[in-house]
Amino acid sequence: MSLVVVGSAALDTVETPCEKRENLLGGSAVYFSVAASFFTSVHLAAVVGEDWPEEHTRLLKTRGIDTAGLQVVPGGKTFRWHGRYEPNLNDRETIDVHLNVLTQHDPVLPEHYRRCQFLFLANGATGLQLRMLEQCPGTVLTVADTMDLWIRTEPDQLAELLRRVDGLVLNDSEAKLLSGEQNVVRAGRRVRQMGPRFVIIKKGEHGAMFFGQHETYVLPAYPTADVVDPTGAGDAFAGGMMGYLAEQGQFDPLSLKQAIAYGTITASFTVEGFSLEGLLRATRDDLDARLEQYKRMVSF
Amino acid sequence: MSLVVVGSAALDTVETPCEKRENLLGGSAVYFSVAASFFTSVHLAAVVGEDWPEEHTRLLKTRGIDTAGLQVVPGGKTFRWHGRYEPNLNDRETIDVHLNVLTQHDPVLPEHYRRCQFLFLANGATGLQLRMLEQCPGTVLTVADTMDLWIRTEPDQLAELLRRVDGLVLNDSEAKLLSGEQNVVRAGRRVRQMGPRFVIIKKGEHGAMFFGQHETYVLPAYPTADVVDPTGAGDAFAGGMMGYLAEQGQFDPLSLKQAIAYGTITASFTVEGFSLEGLLRATRDDLDARLEQYKRMVSF
Repeated sequence: MSLVVVGSAALDTVETPCEKRENLLGGSAVYFSVAASFFTSVHLAAVVGEDWPEEHTRLLKTRGIDTAGLQVVPGGKTFRWHGRYEPNLNDRETIDVHLNVLTQHDPVLPEHYRRCQFLFLANGATGLQLRMLEQCPGTVLTVADTMDLWIRTEPDQLAELLRRVDGLVLNDSEAKLLSGEQNVVRAGRRVRQMGPRFVIIKKGEHGAMFFGQHETYVLPAYPTADVVDPTGAGDAFAGGMMGYLAEQGQFDPLSLKQAIAYGTITASFTVEGFSLEGLLRATRDDLDARLEQYKRMVSF
Repeated sequence: MSLVVVGSAALDTVETPCEKRENLLGGSAVYFSVAASFFTSVHLAAVVGEDWPEEHTRLLKTRGIDTAGLQVVPGGKTFRWHGRYEPNLNDRETIDVHLNVLTQHDPVLPEHYRRCQFLFLANGATGLQLRMLEQCPGTVLTVADTMDLWIRTEPDQLAELLRRVDGLVLNDSEAKLLSGEQNVVRAGRRVRQMGPRFVIIKKGEHGAMFFGQHETYVLPAYPTADVVDPTGAGDAFAGGMMGYLAEQGQFDPLSLKQAIAYGTITASFTVEGFSLEGLLRATRDDLDARLEQYKRMVSF
């Protein structure tokens, strides 16, 4: 079934203890799309400036990603993020952010995007997420991501969003902030009571938790010895998950659990290289082989 | 098969955001024994002072725990620990420690302890752990725990211990310290190369990882909404694990995985009350029911 993602496209500068890389292809919608492209064709909506290298668009197209919704703002500059990771490669500091064209991003989705059945609203201003929802009235599954900034600054709009989406994906500290609960299980349940049918809490290197009406799932991260750059892992997790669901065309609890496992695996490939290098090296067969290995690691 | 644990018996003072409790029954060997007692009879070796309430010994005996190796030092005082938990109930600060009789603890194990087949050396001075090993020459499985203090102060003795035990259990920050690796997967593999056939890394609320020669397992913690007091969870984890293995009388990779799952479940009951309250409320049927629930949460 058709899958649309609305989010950011970015040029990142990433510093790890070993290396500094500049002008890397990044952004939530980009990581999501490439991860989802292992499973299904994705329609990407994002905005970039005139400095956006055409080769990035070409790369996305080679993955079967529809870039009709990738809007280039004349005279504009692409969103830039600069981060530095601690030696543990988990904690990071944001050195610099230039929103640039993101501040004016209020896309009108192409007509064929509006007929999508699966919609992912990557992290972004809540008002914009709501307007995207309105442009896609026929979805069967809508999932959103959010972050501390919007939880703090747009609580009313976020409350409305939570009543209107089917699922919410967010990280553990954000879930605690949103719910006011210190315990992550209570936080997940409380956020679910705010509207979505399910909540997925991402815990980075510690995996993910799923809270549905009757189901709770906990899945550890795939144990990766070679973490190069964790940027985009959360978006790739969501991309693998939604891509699998769109491929299957269903989202019952068991499909969701399998989808979270695929999300875990796509995230594990993502962190093994800078930018999209780790994901682009992998094939669907690599994903399936690692999924089987992972299954043996967690089942007993 | 017979299981011996050598470790501490303590009187704890625990402060959580909601409550302060004093003179609680605690100590690594005590938590371990009670957790293991769901599965098998345990022979406990520890030292206490004259202030040790006889009721604690009686309680241990009602669980089928052999206290022949519980040595009371005339005129001595029991080991005391005082800790305070942060609101997240994961991080804690040690307010006060009185080693008391622990400083003179160099037990001579009862004759029937020395014929044990399963031996757990709970966290303690490495020299003492080595002397306990020597007193039990016929074990089929010996597992040790250790901590940052001994890693820093007794590296040579610890290196010898690692060459002589079958398994090592330690937490993630300790594994990183011992190995010099920042990545937990690399840390686990590196520690295994120091001698033990397997290494289990405890990650608290994030679960545990197992590193064997050919196997890596990752198991999340059981998602507990009602954390009251996390003290002793790591020791109860080890107790559940070793108790199950001693009950089965085997420790092949698949039994170890099942044992880690049982350790996870005993730890989850432990944190649901102060001291041993959570564990003592549970029955073996409760453990088995939660294990089944847990299995459904992690399998896909």
